[in-house]
Amino acid sequence: MNKLQFKILKKDKHCAARYGEIITPHGKISTPVFIPVGTLGAVKSMSPDELEEIGYEIILSNTYHLFLRPGDEIIKKAGGIHNFIGWKKPILTDSGGFQVMSLQKFRKITDDGIEFQSHIDGSYHFFSPEKVMQIEQNLGADIIMVLDECTPFPSSYEYAKKSADLSLKWAIRCKEEFQKSNSNQALFSIVQGSVFDDIREENAKQLLEIGFDGYAIGGLAVGEDKEDLNRIVKLLCNILFEHKPRYLMGVGTPIDLLENIEKGIDMFDCVMPTRIARNGTVYTKKGKLIIRDSEFKEDFKPIENDCNCYACKNFSRAYIRHLIKIKEILGIRLTTIHNLTFYCNLLNDIRSAIMNDNFMEFKRKFIERYRRQNGYYNTN
Amino acid sequence: MNKLQFKILKKDKHCAARYGEIITPHGKISTPVFIPVGTLGAVKSMSPDELEEIGYEIILSNTYHLFLRPGDEIIKKAGGIHNFIGWKKPILTDSGGFQVMSLQKFRKITDDGIEFQSHIDGSYHFFSPEKVMQIEQNLGADIIMVLDECTPFPSSYEYAKKSADLSLKWAIRCKEEFQKSNSNQALFSIVQGSVFDDIREENAKQLLEIGFDGYAIGGLAVGEDKEDLNRIVKLLCNILFEHKPRYLMGVGTPIDLLENIEKGIDMFDCVMPTRIARNGTVYTKKGKLIIRDSEFKEDFKPIENDCNCYACKNFSRAYIRHLIKIKEILGIRLTTIHNLTFYCNLLNDIRSAIMNDNFMEFKRKFIERYRRQNGYYNTN
Repeated sequence: MNKLQFKILKKDKHCAARYGEIITPHGKISTPVFIPVGTLGAVKSMSPDELEEIGYEIILSNTYHLFLRPGDEIIKKAGGIHNFIGWKKPILTDSGGFQVMSLQKFRKITDDGIEFQSHIDGSYHFFSPEKVMQIEQNLGADIIMVLDECTPFPSSYEYAKKSADLSLKWAIRCKEEFQKSNSNQALFSIVQGSVFDDIREENAKQLLEIGFDGYAIGGLAVGEDKEDLNRIVKLLCNILFEHKPRYLMGVGTPIDLLENIEKGIDMFDCVMPTRIARNGTVYTKKGKLIIRDSEFKEDFKPIENDCNCYACKNFSRAYIRHLIKIKEILGIRLTTIHNLTFYCNLLNDIRSAIMNDNFMEFKRKFIERYRRQNGYYNTN
Repeated sequence: MNKLQFKILKKDKHCAARYGEIITPHGKISTPVFIPVGTLGAVKSMSPDELEEIGYEIILSNTYHLFLRPGDEIIKKAGGIHNFIGWKKPILTDSGGFQVMSLQKFRKITDDGIEFQSHIDGSYHFFSPEKVMQIEQNLGADIIMVLDECTPFPSSYEYAKKSADLSLKWAIRCKEEFQKSNSNQALFSIVQGSVFDDIREENAKQLLEIGFDGYAIGGLAVGEDKEDLNRIVKLLCNILFEHKPRYLMGVGTPIDLLENIEKGIDMFDCVMPTRIARNGTVYTKKGKLIIRDSEFKEDFKPIENDCNCYACKNFSRAYIRHLIKIKEILGIRLTTIHNLTFYCNLLNDIRSAIMNDNFMEFKRKFIERYRRQNGYYNTN
């Protein structure tokens, strides 16, 4: 069986950052890795070729969305999600827990699972841990996630405890269902517990005891203070197995990545670089740049001089601004390519820095430059 | 000076179809040619690389739209439209006459030109023949068009006559203005006269006398019967110089191209293949196919088996349908790539057929197959 392997190739001497690789049935992923989000089976505006050319080795798709459209049965008939979407490298599917939890009005949680109404046609559906495993097996991603309740923020201690316990029960049931088939998929669990250290710790230890191929940290970047996020991640990186991938879900900005790689996180996903691209905002080493601003009307330089992306090698800020202003698809494509290249290059640089025991210095210099504000830039 | 040259390389023995090439400062164009429309400096959803890879040698941009956004002065500062949009091959700009005429409520025509209000912010502008030449020179396309009044359909004989005479006067003024600069652009004029043979004939002869680098037929495909279009094109192909390119503006369907190439037309442009692509309709050799139909939900074949385009080589009808249904940009990109490939391949096949004196047979077979209806197809 070709299941997931994780190798740590180098640990930085001066912090907990580690460089490694995850090996899946569809190929290798160098870590730390940023995973672009392809909600419905496509990273918005991108083709698989473009993602591969930028250098991405894995993408994420959303179980909830694919379950509703086109349906996991159709994807199974197509020979699985890799075949269906034409992406031959690794894929991770989330469990749909997070999406269903966002449907505030349309869901009901019981011990047995989550009842919800489709955001498209209002039809009723039920996700049990077993059902979610079946869907994710139909989709056929390399890495699949257990069903969890993404604990809302803020939550009371009592609610957070109850919620983490429920997610734990579901994780057990997911593993049981998962083990019924002789799958070459890898199953990751998700630590919950909101911002409460002892709940997080207990939840993590229980999940470690059950045993999964990797461990994600969920329920963060949902509105809590950055200090809470930092504290919880630090705490969990001390508890989660050294030799298994650690995945911080839904995070984050370039600075978030640096902060959490320092603590020992291996995997990230976030819609931000692609979402802000569609709104005409691009990353540069000196911070973000709102390319739609009139400042750039006659600025014939590329977004970033030393960037190797298709947008920067071929087009000016003025042209990209024009395209964004007129809502031309090519504009969105170019800002998306640039932002995804920015993240990919950042992760490349980070891995090199770890190889050279130079992560802390790299981080310091990157943040200093990124935060050097001027008229156009901001550094979120 | 590197001005336009037109060489006829082969005439078909059995009809007026001809295979040739137009040589411009930015390269060669094999004719008959279909020109994709890039209204605002981009063929909707496409990158310049993709257009080149499909095989296109020229694109069209709209003077009216570029004048309003980003403005011809900005494009001039960028070093011209080729630099600005990153397309290094030939470009043709229309004169804006057609667009301004579509602004029914917002324009006023005088002998001196057209006053109009921007469709974006309602600001007032005036296009005189001289002004349009200056704008098109700022844009810097390889082939530029004179300002004309695109005679509305239907028009009375009197109106059509007056309108054609006005367009003629403007053509003269355009040429005078154009000659003031030592441009390496080529200037095409546009024959008007609605569906009236004698007005068309007189207008064409007058334009030939003034002398232009090529001759377009305007004011067709605006609602008249196909027989009118066919008759006018046939008439004009007998009048217009043999040794200058003949350009039928705004046409058309695959069958329209065949019909008019037979009569001796060398150039076409039309928004149709890209526009219907965005609505989820694709061309096949057996007619059009509405890819968003539920028929294709589990159809894992490519759009067309023997098509060499990126969409057909990598993705199924089921996936493309899914993308179109969820309004994902990649869906529009794939249908656009396919339709533009379909047109490009059709023109390649047509040129080969002419080379082999086989155009009439090719046309007959193509139309027979294209019109073979079944459940899904229609043949407009």
